[in-house]
Amino acid sequence: MCGIVGYIGEQQAQNILLDGLSKLEYRGYDSAGLAIYNGETIGLTKAMGRIRNLEDKLQVRSLPGTIGIGHTRWATHGKPSDANSHPHMDNSDRFAVVHNGIIENYLELKEKLIAKGYIFRSETDTEVIVNLLADLWNGDLLATVQAAVKHLEGAYALAITSEYEPDKLIAVRYASPLIIGIGQGENFIASDIPAILKYTRDIYILEDGEMAVLTPDHVHLMRLDGTKIERDVMTVDWDITTAEKGGYDHFMMKEIYEQPKAIRDTLGSRIKEETVDLTNEIGLNKEEINEIERIHFVACGTAYHAGLVGKYVIEDLARIPVECDVASEYRYRNPIITAKTLVIVVSQSGETADTLAALREAKRQGARVLAITNVVGSSVAREADDVMITWAGPEIAVASTKAYTSQLIAIYLLGAYFAQEKELKTAAEITTIISELKQLPEKVEEVLQQEETVKAFATSIAKHNNLFFLGRGLDNAVGLEGSLKLKELSYIHSEAYAAGELKHGTLALIEEGIPVIALATQPAIYDKMVSNVEEVKARGAHVLGLTTVGNNELEKTVDEVIYIPAVSDLLSPVITVIPLQLLAYYACLARGYDVDKPRNLAKSVTVE
Amino acid sequence: MCGIVGYIGEQQAQNILLDGLSKLEYRGYDSAGLAIYNGETIGLTKAMGRIRNLEDKLQVRSLPGTIGIGHTRWATHGKPSDANSHPHMDNSDRFAVVHNGIIENYLELKEKLIAKGYIFRSETDTEVIVNLLADLWNGDLLATVQAAVKHLEGAYALAITSEYEPDKLIAVRYASPLIIGIGQGENFIASDIPAILKYTRDIYILEDGEMAVLTPDHVHLMRLDGTKIERDVMTVDWDITTAEKGGYDHFMMKEIYEQPKAIRDTLGSRIKEETVDLTNEIGLNKEEINEIERIHFVACGTAYHAGLVGKYVIEDLARIPVECDVASEYRYRNPIITAKTLVIVVSQSGETADTLAALREAKRQGARVLAITNVVGSSVAREADDVMITWAGPEIAVASTKAYTSQLIAIYLLGAYFAQEKELKTAAEITTIISELKQLPEKVEEVLQQEETVKAFATSIAKHNNLFFLGRGLDNAVGLEGSLKLKELSYIHSEAYAAGELKHGTLALIEEGIPVIALATQPAIYDKMVSNVEEVKARGAHVLGLTTVGNNELEKTVDEVIYIPAVSDLLSPVITVIPLQLLAYYACLARGYDVDKPRNLAKSVTVE
Repeated sequence: MCGIVGYIGEQQAQNILLDGLSKLEYRGYDSAGLAIYNGETIGLTKAMGRIRNLEDKLQVRSLPGTIGIGHTRWATHGKPSDANSHPHMDNSDRFAVVHNGIIENYLELKEKLIAKGYIFRSETDTEVIVNLLADLWNGDLLATVQAAVKHLEGAYALAITSEYEPDKLIAVRYASPLIIGIGQGENFIASDIPAILKYTRDIYILEDGEMAVLTPDHVHLMRLDGTKIERDVMTVDWDITTAEKGGYDHFMMKEIYEQPKAIRDTLGSRIKEETVDLTNEIGLNKEEINEIERIHFVACGTAYHAGLVGKYVIEDLARIPVECDVASEYRYRNPIITAKTLVIVVSQSGETADTLAALREAKRQGARVLAITNVVGSSVAREADDVMITWAGPEIAVASTKAYTSQLIAIYLLGAYFAQEKELKTAAEITTIISELKQLPEKVEEVLQQEETVKAFATSIAKHNNLFFLGRGLDNAVGLEGSLKLKELSYIHSEAYAAGELKHGTLALIEEGIPVIALATQPAIYDKMVSNVEEVKARGAHVLGLTTVGNNELEKTVDEVIYIPAVSDLLSPVITVIPLQLLAYYACLARGYDVDKPRNLAKSVTVE
Repeated sequence: MCGIVGYIGEQQAQNILLDGLSKLEYRGYDSAGLAIYNGETIGLTKAMGRIRNLEDKLQVRSLPGTIGIGHTRWATHGKPSDANSHPHMDNSDRFAVVHNGIIENYLELKEKLIAKGYIFRSETDTEVIVNLLADLWNGDLLATVQAAVKHLEGAYALAITSEYEPDKLIAVRYASPLIIGIGQGENFIASDIPAILKYTRDIYILEDGEMAVLTPDHVHLMRLDGTKIERDVMTVDWDITTAEKGGYDHFMMKEIYEQPKAIRDTLGSRIKEETVDLTNEIGLNKEEINEIERIHFVACGTAYHAGLVGKYVIEDLARIPVECDVASEYRYRNPIITAKTLVIVVSQSGETADTLAALREAKRQGARVLAITNVVGSSVAREADDVMITWAGPEIAVASTKAYTSQLIAIYLLGAYFAQEKELKTAAEITTIISELKQLPEKVEEVLQQEETVKAFATSIAKHNNLFFLGRGLDNAVGLEGSLKLKELSYIHSEAYAAGELKHGTLALIEEGIPVIALATQPAIYDKMVSNVEEVKARGAHVLGLTTVGNNELEKTVDEVIYIPAVSDLLSPVITVIPLQLLAYYACLARGYDVDKPRNLAKSVTVE
């Protein structure tokens, strides 16, 4: 993760860099720092924790200068500490570097540099880069950087400044995202677009293996070997105000309440009265759809949980066998991929490093790749063969909510479209699915009215450190997502289990008073589910049941019940997940943690 | 779960029933009880907890009589308590019943009986059966039982006695196992063979939908509708002494140390110098193997974890796409099964209800089913098309060890056999695999010598209530098994994660001092794994690394290391799991719990 920024121009760099970092804080908030050239030497200020700690330090003593780099950190190597914070400088303090990514061979490089007499001040992998620059210094900054990166293995987006050539900034991208902002007499480097949007809307997106040399008036793009690159300027057409809290206490709550709109927007013009129309959007025609033998969903975290629902949905509607893989595993497990395999990658940001690496591996092996992502123009969107955008709008809270439900909608549309094109469903059946999809926003609004009931239960579980979610089938897939949300926000060690599997071992952890959240929305397996609830009740668990309105049987078995509006079985995850999002939100508040910025995490995970 | 026994003959029933229950305690130990007809009325004694509590009560006041039934309970409906213990009797105390299984429509039946004036003394589902017998009593015990079971939905093995006809016992089997033991002037009912082995080796195995009427001199077998059944007596040829501890403190430790032998025996005559020969054992010929389009592993708990390894092994060696499903989910998720699907079910006992139900569903949908099981003649073995027996010998400890490693061996044999028959591997490659398999017992012996190192670490984690296992690829599959073992035995809430996935949410739970067990045995992904370890180290985790001898790099990153002998990547799970079994064992001892009988669990899970 980590976010990096750079500025070169005529204005004082400090506040521009700080402002940029504040827009990148979703990428990490373990520490932050700036390095600014003051006309003579490079001034350096760093602080552990949130960016406001850095701001406090800079208010006491500011960093003058018009050329600088900055960093907000998500710790990979070495604990969050002042020493491990970026920017890092070499032993002679002539080079400063900020880095997003992981240098995999850093131990080997570090040993070599130590043997040569270099002293390391931090535990980070990044510090090898600056000392390598010093070690390889040949009187030419660009040539030295090019020589240094040849030694690096892993992933890196870098911004580099040096006292030796203080008239320029150098940016390097390899497997971590980086963009260049083009201003008037000033230029910018950033990990992501929002960091520079206040200053310019003209950008270049660097691709892997590319670098840029920035002066106040020019940006020179080239490959790492020096080959010049010509590229069109891209103009960003975004509304900045969407990223404000709009009256809510937290972005997360705002985003939970935006779900009806996100669902409507994602359905958008893709559904007509009687058909699902994705013809112009994804390139797969009827014949190609009929030829798909296997589908692999590949994603991480919450998007992976959307994929788990996708397995049920696609297998049920389109009768194509589906496998669902965690992206960091998929790439390395020698998956069986043929030209008839469709790989569907799901990523909110479209920059998730694990997912991107899996996408590339799948393409290399000849699969067709379809991306479901929330960000137009993201790496995943650019590199996939086909793209379905989820129109959820910017998601700022680290814990994903509206992106997840929008991903589900995209998956339903895809499943229904495949079923329609494969003629597995009658026109009447497709019409029914469409009409049910259209009703979802309203049903989500209904279930949001349960907020107070959920809040009360959240308060009661907040004193526990362990709990379990149980469910069968689609309820289990949703339970996994609810459990992840609760972990991320409340730091309760929660775990979701297929209800029938608990007795094969984990039931040993059920003891008097432990909270269990039992999801029982699927009529076909309701009786089996109740039997499993009885098993945990018999061991003293305090059970919150979640079932559909009208099913009053569950009350007899569990301690408390939340009722949700009934929808067709297949669509239920969209509704079921809402109370679980609220539960995580309120459990987090009850335990006194930061809703929008959970510890250790970052929004867009751009390292493997 | 639950174990039931019955006796009718000329000896005093009490001690025979108690002895039988002690052999069935692996099926549950929440409570136990006996009901014995004393020539006038039915005497009843029940006690919460282990069978020795019941014995204590009976020493104070014994139950005379030569006809009786007994029960050891694994609670499904209602907490462990005296009231909820079996046997259950009707309101008039004329009928006594012991039950293994779950009556799914018990709430409905209970309401009807309450409406008729019956009073319920327990929270169990079983009590509806006795009151139903009383309600339907028509002057003929057999006819009344046949009328009553028509009302029952779910699973049940029953033993029934009544004051009205005290000259007989009735046994009923539907979806829970039951056998009849045939003696001289005495007959027996039991959930499993060991319970009667001291008294007779001649048995009938009841099938679903069958019942038996026992008198001291006769056993009449029939279907539930009364149709008579003819069946050959089966003679059990077992060595009783294998089920003794042989100098070890616990069965589990004995079974851990039996793994080299279990592996040798499972390899047995299946490997020659240069080929794997399963031709006579499983019916699949070359052509049929070539036609397999998909394999589904279906299992529960530890056997499911063997299936996860199976996915890697079969996909890697035989290049057939494999899906791995939890059995309780498989049956209900509408899986895509064709005649070209091979379903492989894995179950130590061969009686796991979830697995058996999935097997039946797969057969119904036309799949060919291969069973990997440790018990010859078990339900799973009888009903599958093909069977591979794991020759691990009886496994008594509830937490599975040697059954798991033997299941892995069966899977390697299968993968190599498929690769050989599909001609995907050269003769030389097959010879290499065979030679590596042959070396495994010796390597397991080597890693067992690490016992003291593991014990020290186990003691240090015993004070924690939460921990995480991390690994990539096969290491993740083994981590899941190690984590389950630790949960079952030490009640530490442990969770295994694909190492690359942790940062997508669960990293929020990593805090100062939390133990993390990092498995790093796979060279191809070693660097990525180390990066993930750095991420948890940066948040203060205390890390135990597990890697192969000679890989001294890991020491630099983690706090403690256990070295295991190097084997080929694919075979590593057999070695890697051993220290994790020892870890669970010693963590359990350090926390003062019962190794062989973890709370809430039972060995053979015969309810869904």
